[in-house]
Amino acid sequence: MDKKAASELIIQSIKNKKVKFQDLANATGNSLIFTIHALHGQATLDEAAAGKIGEILSLSPELVASLQEIPLRSVLQATPTDPTLYRLVEMMQNYGPDIKAAINELFGDGAMSGIDFKIDIEKVESPNGARVKLVLDGKFLPFNKF
Amino acid sequence: MDKKAASELIIQSIKNKKVKFQDLANATGNSLIFTIHALHGQATLDEAAAGKIGEILSLSPELVASLQEIPLRSVLQATPTDPTLYRLVEMMQNYGPDIKAAINELFGDGAMSGIDFKIDIEKVESPNGARVKLVLDGKFLPFNKF
Amino acid sequence: MDKKAASELIIQSIKNKKVKFQDLANATGNSLIFTIHALHGQATLDEAAAGKIGEILSLSPELVASLQEIPLRSVLQATPTDPTLYRLVEMMQNYGPDIKAAINELFGDGAMSGIDFKIDIEKVESPNGARVKLVLDGKFLPFNKF
Amino acid sequence: MDKKAASELIIQSIKNKKVKFQDLANATGNSLIFTIHALHGQATLDEAAAGKIGEILSLSPELVASLQEIPLRSVLQATPTDPTLYRLVEMMQNYGPDIKAAINELFGDGAMSGIDFKIDIEKVESPNGARVKLVLDGKFLPFNKF
Amino acid sequence: MDKKAASELIIQSIKNKKVKFQDLANATGNSLIFTIHALHGQATLDEAAAGKIGEILSLSPELVASLQEIPLRSVLQATPTDPTLYRLVEMMQNYGPDIKAAINELFGDGAMSGIDFKIDIEKVESPNGARVKLVLDGKFLPFNKF
Amino acid sequence: MDKKAASELIIQSIKNKKVKFQDLANATGNSLIFTIHALHGQATLDEAAAGKIGEILSLSPELVASLQEIPLRSVLQATPTDPTLYRLVEMMQNYGPDIKAAINELFGDGAMSGIDFKIDIEKVESPNGARVKLVLDGKFLPFNKF
Amino acid sequence: MDKKAASELIIQSIKNKKVKFQDLANATGNSLIFTIHALHGQATLDEAAAGKIGEILSLSPELVASLQEIPLRSVLQATPTDPTLYRLVEMMQNYGPDIKAAINELFGDGAMSGIDFKIDIEKVESPNGARVKLVLDGKFLPFNKF
Amino acid sequence: MDKKAASELIIQSIKNKKVKFQDLANATGNSLIFTIHALHGQATLDEAAAGKIGEILSLSPELVASLQEIPLRSVLQATPTDPTLYRLVEMMQNYGPDIKAAINELFGDGAMSGIDFKIDIEKVESPNGARVKLVLDGKFLPFNKF
Amino acid sequence: MDKKAASELIIQSIKNKKVKFQDLANATGNSLIFTIHALHGQATLDEAAAGKIGEILSLSPELVASLQEIPLRSVLQATPTDPTLYRLVEMMQNYGPDIKAAINELFGDGAMSGIDFKIDIEKVESPNGARVKLVLDGKFLPFNKF
Amino acid sequence: MDKKAASELIIQSIKNKKVKFQDLANATGNSLIFTIHALHGQATLDEAAAGKIGEILSLSPELVASLQEIPLRSVLQATPTDPTLYRLVEMMQNYGPDIKAAINELFGDGAMSGIDFKIDIEKVESPNGARVKLVLDGKFLPFNKF
Repeated sequence: MDKKAASELIIQSIKNKKVKFQDLANATGNSLIFTIHALHGQATLDEAAAGKIGEILSLSPELVASLQEIPLRSVLQATPTDPTLYRLVEMMQNYGPDIKAAINELFGDGAMSGIDFKIDIEKVESPNGARVKLVLDGKFLPFNKF
Repeated sequence: MDKKAASELIIQSIKNKKVKFQDLANATGNSLIFTIHALHGQATLDEAAAGKIGEILSLSPELVASLQEIPLRSVLQATPTDPTLYRLVEMMQNYGPDIKAAINELFGDGAMSGIDFKIDIEKVESPNGARVKLVLDGKFLPFNKF
Repeated sequence: MDKKAASELIIQSIKNKKVKFQDLANATGNSLIFTIHALHGQATLDEAAAGKIGEILSLSPELVASLQEIPLRSVLQATPTDPTLYRLVEMMQNYGPDIKAAINELFGDGAMSGIDFKIDIEKVESPNGARVKLVLDGKFLPFNKF
Repeated sequence: MDKKAASELIIQSIKNKKVKFQDLANATGNSLIFTIHALHGQATLDEAAAGKIGEILSLSPELVASLQEIPLRSVLQATPTDPTLYRLVEMMQNYGPDIKAAINELFGDGAMSGIDFKIDIEKVESPNGARVKLVLDGKFLPFNKF
Repeated sequence: MDKKAASELIIQSIKNKKVKFQDLANATGNSLIFTIHALHGQATLDEAAAGKIGEILSLSPELVASLQEIPLRSVLQATPTDPTLYRLVEMMQNYGPDIKAAINELFGDGAMSGIDFKIDIEKVESPNGARVKLVLDGKFLPFNKF
Repeated sequence: MDKKAASELIIQSIKNKKVKFQDLANATGNSLIFTIHALHGQATLDEAAAGKIGEILSLSPELVASLQEIPLRSVLQATPTDPTLYRLVEMMQNYGPDIKAAINELFGDGAMSGIDFKIDIEKVESPNGARVKLVLDGKFLPFNKF
Repeated sequence: MDKKAASELIIQSIKNKKVKFQDLANATGNSLIFTIHALHGQATLDEAAAGKIGEILSLSPELVASLQEIPLRSVLQATPTDPTLYRLVEMMQNYGPDIKAAINELFGDGAMSGIDFKIDIEKVESPNGARVKLVLDGKFLPFNKF
Repeated sequence: MDKKAASELIIQSIKNKKVKFQDLANATGNSLIFTIHALHGQATLDEAAAGKIGEILSLSPELVASLQEIPLRSVLQATPTDPTLYRLVEMMQNYGPDIKAAINELFGDGAMSGIDFKIDIEKVESPNGARVKLVLDGKFLPFNKF
Repeated sequence: MDKKAASELIIQSIKNKKVKFQDLANATGNSLIFTIHALHGQATLDEAAAGKIGEILSLSPELVASLQEIPLRSVLQATPTDPTLYRLVEMMQNYGPDIKAAINELFGDGAMSGIDFKIDIEKVESPNGARVKLVLDGKFLPFNKF
Repeated sequence: MDKKAASELIIQSIKNKKVKFQDLANATGNSLIFTIHALHGQATLDEAAAGKIGEILSLSPELVASLQEIPLRSVLQATPTDPTLYRLVEMMQNYGPDIKAAINELFGDGAMSGIDFKIDIEKVESPNGARVKLVLDGKFLPFNKF
C-alpha cells in the first residue's frame, strides 16, 4: 500500500473513532502540527510513536509500518483554492520579500530552513474574537562561499 | 509617481544613508516587518509615521505622500524562485493542510485572516546556530451560514 | 466516504426525487445559494438542517453526517470554461479594480470578506426579458497596522 | 496616446485635484462603479459625460477624446494576487457552480450576461462593523436551439 | 449517470448503428451542428427531439432523459492539440482583433453573443477542391452604460 | 522599423484622419476583415494595395513598405480576456468538437485550412436587434497516407 | 472501445508476437513512420491495410475496425519531458524561425502543411557513429488575400 | 551590445540592402538554414565567415564580433502562435512518439541529437504545387549504462 | 503490463524483502544511481542484470522482461514540490547559467550531454555533519556548424 | 543601480578586457563556478574579493559595492529553453527521484542542501572526446521531528 492510501485509511479511522489529533499528539509526545503532518503521510514517525498511534486507532501492522516510511512530501501543487489554505500561502506571498529583507538585516545573506524547522499553533482569545497564532521556527542557513 | 516607483527610490535612499529598517521601525513605533512592508509599497502608513520616515531619509513631499497611499498589494506572482523566498512559501504548501486541520479541531470551520493579521520576526541564538522565529497572528474568521 | 463522493450521491438523489433546491432551502431556513453550496459539499450544515434534508431525501446516516463535515472548499480551478461559470468570474476580473477603488473611497484600505459573507439571487422580470440579480454582502476588513 | 496611458494620466489628475470618484459619478449621472470603470479605461463614455469630466479635471481635448474610445477591456489576467482583488474573484470561483445551479432552477438553461450588466456598491453599517454590499444585475440569456 | 457518460454511450450507439448525424438532425428539425452539440452532451434537447433520437437509436429512458439535462458545457480546456480542432481556435486567435475592430466600426462598442448564437456548416465544391464553409450568427450585445 | 511598430503608427493615423476601415477596403478591392488584418500587421499587402493606402493616409515610404513585409503572425497568446475577443475564441472551444465531427461526416478525415482561408462579416438587422454574421471559408485538407 | 484503448491492445499484441513495425509497414505498403502513427491510433488506415494488420496480429474485428476510425489526434500536450521526445520538439523550437525565414525567401508568405505531409526515417552509418535522418515533406500553403 | 540587439540590427541591414540569405550562405560556404540561424543570433560563426558577412553588409566591427559570440539559444518559449511556426512544432508533437518508436526499433534505446545536428531545406515542385522538404540529420546517442 | 506498473510492483517487492538498492547494484555491477534509475522504470537493463535482479527478488518472467524494455522516460513534470526533489532542481536553476558560462570558457560552444552521462553519489562525513556528494559526468557535445 | 544592471555592466567589461573568469577566480581564491555566480549577480562577495575584481576590471566604486550586496537570487524561471541550460535541469528532473531514493538509503529522511552547498567543474579528456565533470557537494539536512 502506498503512503497516501495508508494516510487516507488512518484519517478515516480517526474520524470513525472520534479521536482528536491533540490526543494522539499527547500520546506520542510530539506537537499537534507535526502529528497531523505525519498522519497526513508527510513525515516519518519513529517506531514507538507509530506503535502508540496504531494501538489507539487499532491499526493493522501494515498501516503502522507506513507511518514509519519516508514520504514523497507536499500534497499541494501550485496555489491552493480552498480559502483557508489560500490565505496561509498568501501571507508568505505578501510578506515574503519583507521577511527576506528582515532576515538579511538581522542575520546577513541566507535563508530560513524549511527542513530543520518546526511549527506550533495556539488559540488565543481576545476581546475581538479568537485569534490563530502560528510560530514558525527554522534554522538560519547562510549561503556559503566556495 | 506610482507607489512602486516611489518605493524603489525610498529603498535606494535607505541604502545610501545606511539606515537600518529597525531604526525606522523604532522611530515610528511599528514592528520591523510592518515597516519593511510599508517601505516596499505594500501597506499604508499614517501621516505621522510617513512624516517621521520622510524626515530621517530626507524624502520629498511626493514620496512622503506615496507612503500614505493605498497600494495594489502583492509583488510575488506564482511561486518565487529565490531560495529564501521559496522556502517561506514552501513551508505553507507543505504544512498548509495540517494547519487547516488543526484550526478546524481547535476553532471549527473557518480560516485564519491574512488581513486582520500581524507578523513578527526574532533572531534566536541556539547551540546549533542562530534560528529565525516568525510569529504569525491572525483573527479566526468562521465561515458563516446564511 | 469523502465529502465529494457524498455530494454526488445527494445531488443524484435530488434529481431522482425531482426535489427543488428551493424546497430544501425553505425546509432548513437557509437561503437558496447557501443550501446549494452545502449540497455541493462546499459548506457545513448544522445537525438540524442536515437531518431535515436527510429526511426529505431519505439519505443514509453516513450521507447526513457528511453534510456536517468541514469541506476542502473550492471546486473550480483557474478559469472555468463553461460559459455560465466563465461570465461570473469575468465580471469580477473586469470590474475588480473598479470595486477595489470604490471600496477604498468608501471605506479606506481593506477588503470585502469572502468568509464573513453571504450571497442572494433573485429573478427580476423586465420588459426586455428576465434579469438575474445577485446580492453579495461581505464584511469590510481593514488592513491592520502593527 | 493609447487608452491605457490616457487612463493613467486621468487617475493621476484625480489624485492631484483630490476629487472623489463619487463627485464625478454625480456630475455625469452615472453610477460610482461605472464611472470608475470608464476612468480606468474599461468603458466608453458619451460625449456629454466625457466633457463634464474633462471640465472638472481640466483635461486636454486628447484625454477627453480617449474617454469616448472603445477599449480593449480587462486589465486583470488570470487570478490576481492583491488580497482585495483576489477575494472578489474567489467569491465567484467558490459560489459559481451554486449560482449556475440556482439560475438553472429559476430560469432554465442559460447564462447571466456580463455585457448587458450593471453593478452597484453600497456601504452598510452593522453592529459588527461596516459591510460591503454589491448588487450585480445582468440579463438572463437563454442558450438557443437551432 | 452523468451527462458525459451518457453522451459516450449515445455516440457509441450511433457508431454501432451506422446512423449519420445528418439523419438525426433531419429527424428532429435541428441543424447538423446543434444536433452534434447536443449528442456530445453540450446542449439541452426538448422532450420531442430527445424522444425522436431515442427511438431511432433505441436508447434507454435514462439516456433519453440525459439529453434533456442542462450540461456543464465546454469539453476543451486551453488550446487543443488535435490539428483539426487547433486550426478552428487558431482562426479566432489570429482574426479575433480584426473581427472586434470590424464589429466596433459596424455596430459600436459591444460583443457578438456566444449564447444567442447559431452555427451552420456547408460543403462547397470548387475547382481547387472542396471547401468548408462555416456561418456563425450571433446577436450583437452592446455594452450598457449605467 | 518592425511591422508591429509600423502597424501602431498606421492605426493611429487612421484614427486621426477619421478614415473608416471600410473605405480602405473599398479602395484596395479587398474585404473588410482582410484589410483590418493587414493594417494590424498580420498579413502582406501587394504593392498596389499598399500604395493606395499610403496615399489615402499620407504614409511615409517606410510605412508603405512595411505593409508588404511578411509578418510574424498572431497577436493573441493563450486565451484573451477582453469580453468581445473571448467570446469569439469560446465559440470555437465550445463548438470545435462538433465542427470536427461534422467535417468528418461530410468530408472524411481532414481539417479546415486556416491558411487557404477567408472570412467575411455582415451586419444583419432582425426584429430582436442586430446580429453579427461571420462567414468562415477554408479549404478542406485531407490527412494523407504515406 | 475507444481508439486509444484499441491502440494499447494492438501495441501489446505486437510486443507479444515480437513483430517488427517494419514488417507491418512492408505488408501494407505504407512507410514505417505512417504505420507506427496509425498503430498508435493517430491516423486512419484503409480497409485493406487494416485487414492485413489484423491478419498478421490475429486482431479481433473490433480492433481492425478501430484502425479505420478517424482519431482525435495528438498524444503529447505542451512540451514532453522524455529526452528523446524533447529533443525532437526542441529542434523545431530552435530552428523554427530560421525555417520560416527560409520558406519566406524561397516560396513567399506561407506555411509548410502539417496535414498534406509525410515523414521518412533512415538509419545512416558514419565513421563517427550512426545518424538518424528524418525527411519531412509538406505542401507549401500560401496565405491567401481576400 | 548583446547578441539579440546585434541580430536585430544585422537583419535590418539585410532588409535594407535587399541581400538574400542564400547569397550570404554561398559566400560563407555554410548551408541556408545554418546561416539564418547564425544571423538570428542562435549560433557562433567562425572569424572568416563573420568577416565575409560583415564585408557584404558593411557591418561595424562590434556587429562582426557579436556573430562570433556564444549565444543564449532558443527564441521561442512554449508553443508559438504564428501559424508557420506552430505547424513546425506540431509535426513533432504529432509524430514524436512514432519517431521515437522507429528510432528504438532501428537503433535501440537512445535519442537523436539536437546538437550534433544539421538541417537542410529544399523547394520541390510537384504537379499539385510546390512542397517544402526538410532534412533533419542528427547523431544517434545511445543512453549509456553505468 | 506497462513499465510503470511493473516498476511499482518491483519497488514493492524490494520493500517487502527489505533488500537494499546497493545490494542489487553490487549484484549487477552497475552503480547505485543507475540501478535505482532502472528499477524506477527509467532505463533498460541488459538480460543478465535483469535476470540477477529477478532472481534476488523472485520476480515473475514478465517483470524481468519489463526491466529490459525501453521506457518513456522522466517521471517529474514541471517543478517538483517535494523538498528533497525541489532542491536538486533548484541547484541547476540557480547555477545553470554559471555552469554554461564555465563550459563555454573551458570547452567552447556546446552542451554537457544528459544521455552519454553518468552520475554517482557518495556520503561524506565532515565535522559539521554528513554531506551528499554527487558527481555528474557527461560528454561535451559541441554545436556543429553546417 | 540594481544588482542585475550592475552585473550586466561587469560582464560587459570582462568581455571588453578579454579577462577569463578563471583568472578572476584565481585572484580571489574562490572557485570558478562561485566566481561566475557572483559576477552574474547571484551571490555576495566579501570586501576583499570585490575589491580585487574591481581592480582587475577597473570598476567604479558603485559596481564594486554592488558585488557585496545580497541578491534576489535565481535568474531562470520555469524550464529554460537554451539547450545547454535545459540539459542541466533535465538531468535533475530525470534522476531526481533516484537521487532521493539513494539519499534515503544512505542517510535516512532528509534533503541535500542547496544553500550550504558548493559545486565544482572540471574538464576531463577521454578517448571518446572531452567530458564535463560536475561535483555537487551539499550538507545533508535531516527532517526534524517536533
